[in-house]
Amino acid sequence: MSFINKLEAAWDKADSLLCVGLDPNWSKIPEHLKEESEPIFEFCKAIIDATHDLVCAYKPQIAYFAALEAESQLQKVMNYLNETYPHIPIILDSKRGDIGSTAAMYAKEAFERFGADAVTVNPYMGQDSAEPFLSYADKGVVLLCRTSNAGAQDIQDLEVDGTPVYELVAKMISEQWNTNNNCCIVVGATWPQQMQRLREITGDMPFLVPGVGAQGGDVKALVEAGQTQNGRGLMINSSRAVLYADSGTGYAMAARGVALETRDLINQYRR
Amino acid sequence: MSFINKLEAAWDKADSLLCVGLDPNWSKIPEHLKEESEPIFEFCKAIIDATHDLVCAYKPQIAYFAALEAESQLQKVMNYLNETYPHIPIILDSKRGDIGSTAAMYAKEAFERFGADAVTVNPYMGQDSAEPFLSYADKGVVLLCRTSNAGAQDIQDLEVDGTPVYELVAKMISEQWNTNNNCCIVVGATWPQQMQRLREITGDMPFLVPGVGAQGGDVKALVEAGQTQNGRGLMINSSRAVLYADSGTGYAMAARGVALETRDLINQYRR
Repeated sequence: MSFINKLEAAWDKADSLLCVGLDPNWSKIPEHLKEESEPIFEFCKAIIDATHDLVCAYKPQIAYFAALEAESQLQKVMNYLNETYPHIPIILDSKRGDIGSTAAMYAKEAFERFGADAVTVNPYMGQDSAEPFLSYADKGVVLLCRTSNAGAQDIQDLEVDGTPVYELVAKMISEQWNTNNNCCIVVGATWPQQMQRLREITGDMPFLVPGVGAQGGDVKALVEAGQTQNGRGLMINSSRAVLYADSGTGYAMAARGVALETRDLINQYRR
Repeated sequence: MSFINKLEAAWDKADSLLCVGLDPNWSKIPEHLKEESEPIFEFCKAIIDATHDLVCAYKPQIAYFAALEAESQLQKVMNYLNETYPHIPIILDSKRGDIGSTAAMYAKEAFERFGADAVTVNPYMGQDSAEPFLSYADKGVVLLCRTSNAGAQDIQDLEVDGTPVYELVAKMISEQWNTNNNCCIVVGATWPQQMQRLREITGDMPFLVPGVGAQGGDVKALVEAGQTQNGRGLMINSSRAVLYADSGTGYAMAARGVALETRDLINQYRR
């Protein structure tokens, strides 16, 4: 099944546009877990078990594993998800991108080594750098377009004859890069007006939307601006607000509480 | 010692602007090595031992290790370089970039876990995404500017009031991101006319120049366009042409031959 089909099924099954980001920050993981032999895996597993019926996707962020030399625990998280919840798409957030021969290695890392359904990719190096990812037709390629951070304006908002770079990027992806119908774009929750314009440009292309929760994005505004005609089209990511809802032994149930609340809040504004 | 000082000393000690890229492609590694317990490390170690007096830097490309689940062998390569040839700067080529809290993890991966002297970073997400790297004042941050691949034109060449994006990126880096004097930029060897303009914009900022050798860049044109007033300023990278000069047991000596030839060819055109 292609990534897009898997995502569509997951939107419906969980009645949810919520994606939970797995960013296991060592300084925020509950203390009692740190005595386990694989604390990062145990933390992620508990979060997953507590939220699996509420999400349309999980998004493990590889940097948090790499900084701790914990690739083997990331692999266990991926395997656990693929075996226990095979219907939930996994987006490996690694923001890779390089010339073709090297990009092929990054694609192999994400799709073959870790078994991700999709991977985030930085488009700055152009279409040929994305091609090795795009050529995995059943996998999703989630390209940075308009990111959620303040610095996004430095390059992404530069205007070319009155049109910002991020719009041109969205247009290129939509019209030229998406021949396998496996592209998605990243659009920060913090910019609803840009999101509306990007929805017009890209039709039904799914958006990965970071910036809700800790980053302060307005849910109502972003859902109204970004959803498709059938009230889907979004993977609204929350990481810190869900993961660190409680720092004690009740962290998983607290995470479930925040995930449920966020899913339902999002659903209030869907068509 | 700062990265820039280490690089300057290395340019002089080896009388060389050549950087050797360590891209251990499994399908090209000599067959007899594949029976070793750590063939990728052994391959890189032999290349390093055969070329260390001819280079100003090494650039391990992390994707080739990651695709093979070989982070531990990359760590051994980094440790070997830091212990045996501590005067040679190591640029970890991983092209990272993300929002601040995640970028901090990538910076930790490169500088603290792997012990790199510098890391390549993708600037598309803007200054705040580069800040966690830049704040390691003694480490180098090598930002993508005008890359060597054909697709570089898709975004990097877009014109803002007649000025291409990559020039604006170079200007931003030079004027705003370089407060710790630890920035470098990537400028493809395949574009000498752009390189000349970028040299004007950035003063003496070092350029990492991929695209010589397998990618076909013209050495004379790029050295004349990119060198600084004192005949330095460049880290001219060659990976495949050096690494795979011979596929048999003589690969290390063959690599030395190509490295020597390339260094001397480059030196012909230096001031």
